[in-house]
Amino acid sequence: MKEFPDHIQKVIDHFMQLPGIGPRSAFRMVSHLLHMPDESLVDFGDSISLLKQKIRFCNKCFNITEAEYCLICENPNRQQSRILVVEDILDLVAFERAREYKGVYHVLGGVLSPLRGIGPEDLHISELVSRMNEANGESLEIIIATNPNLEGEATAMYLKNILQKFENINITRIARGIPTGADIDYADDATLLQALNRRETY
Amino acid sequence: MKEFPDHIQKVIDHFMQLPGIGPRSAFRMVSHLLHMPDESLVDFGDSISLLKQKIRFCNKCFNITEAEYCLICENPNRQQSRILVVEDILDLVAFERAREYKGVYHVLGGVLSPLRGIGPEDLHISELVSRMNEANGESLEIIIATNPNLEGEATAMYLKNILQKFENINITRIARGIPTGADIDYADDATLLQALNRRETY
Repeated sequence: MKEFPDHIQKVIDHFMQLPGIGPRSAFRMVSHLLHMPDESLVDFGDSISLLKQKIRFCNKCFNITEAEYCLICENPNRQQSRILVVEDILDLVAFERAREYKGVYHVLGGVLSPLRGIGPEDLHISELVSRMNEANGESLEIIIATNPNLEGEATAMYLKNILQKFENINITRIARGIPTGADIDYADDATLLQALNRRETY
Repeated sequence: MKEFPDHIQKVIDHFMQLPGIGPRSAFRMVSHLLHMPDESLVDFGDSISLLKQKIRFCNKCFNITEAEYCLICENPNRQQSRILVVEDILDLVAFERAREYKGVYHVLGGVLSPLRGIGPEDLHISELVSRMNEANGESLEIIIATNPNLEGEATAMYLKNILQKFENINITRIARGIPTGADIDYADDATLLQALNRRETY
């Protein structure tokens, strides 16, 4: 005996494809939708259906955009000579939320992962190299901000090897250590060791 | 300077209307959608747009259904003489998940709440009374399963007053006490007192 009418199950299944959504929260959402006016549902549904037609990736940095280039690449107040390389758009958004960084980005679209069959050609690495070539000897800073885990470090290392062939390019890596506001006694061993080994003159 | 392209912001705003979804998890979802094939997005979008056209409420118990009556009311193996009265469909689904109850339901569609301006006429109470009338003196059990909080108790009391006018109707209320598997030292005062006052012969 099935639990839900077919169409409800279909909407639940769609919601369950989203990150962090299990069967219960999916049904909570559908139950909430059932109490919304029909126009809102059609508008919500259309906004999802049209997502790929309305949104594309920036031709330069692969951030999301409605035009050829994204709002950050097009902003004359952002330093084009400083490029923060991130794994995905969520990381870009995290840096933007901090409201301090004034350079531009390059979104790789993932990390190298031999286990999952993701190689350099699956990431936007050749496009990053093109940006280096287009700089025409102008000095650039490339800040590698892949995650500080196994795959992120391997990707950072791969990028470093490729990028250091270019002249006038300063390659940096985001700092690792104890997160601001964290409790040292809750930090994991790897973080504590990194914080000790990378200690700074005080 | 806006954070996202307009259409992305629109989809984020829609997701944020759902229960438990803040701006970050909404963007995580949209970011996930951006990596799905276009057909899946159109199918997902359509499933939401068509929700109200495909799904209606059962004419008898107000559960969700694609037909005039729901799968539970139409099931000949369910006892029609035992009606579990719940606040909303989520509660019905919770009881169905426990796989033990073999009666039918009546979904009120909320609770009485003078503060939020919700009166008896806003709930499916007159329809419950109609079900009593249609029983034609056949004996019924009504199990009131509104939540054990202020509004739920007030609604239970209101229902009891209305329903006890009918003959051959046995009105019960779900038991309160310490939840199975819970720690007594974590239980709140009200629950502990209820568990003491409602103690059973052992």
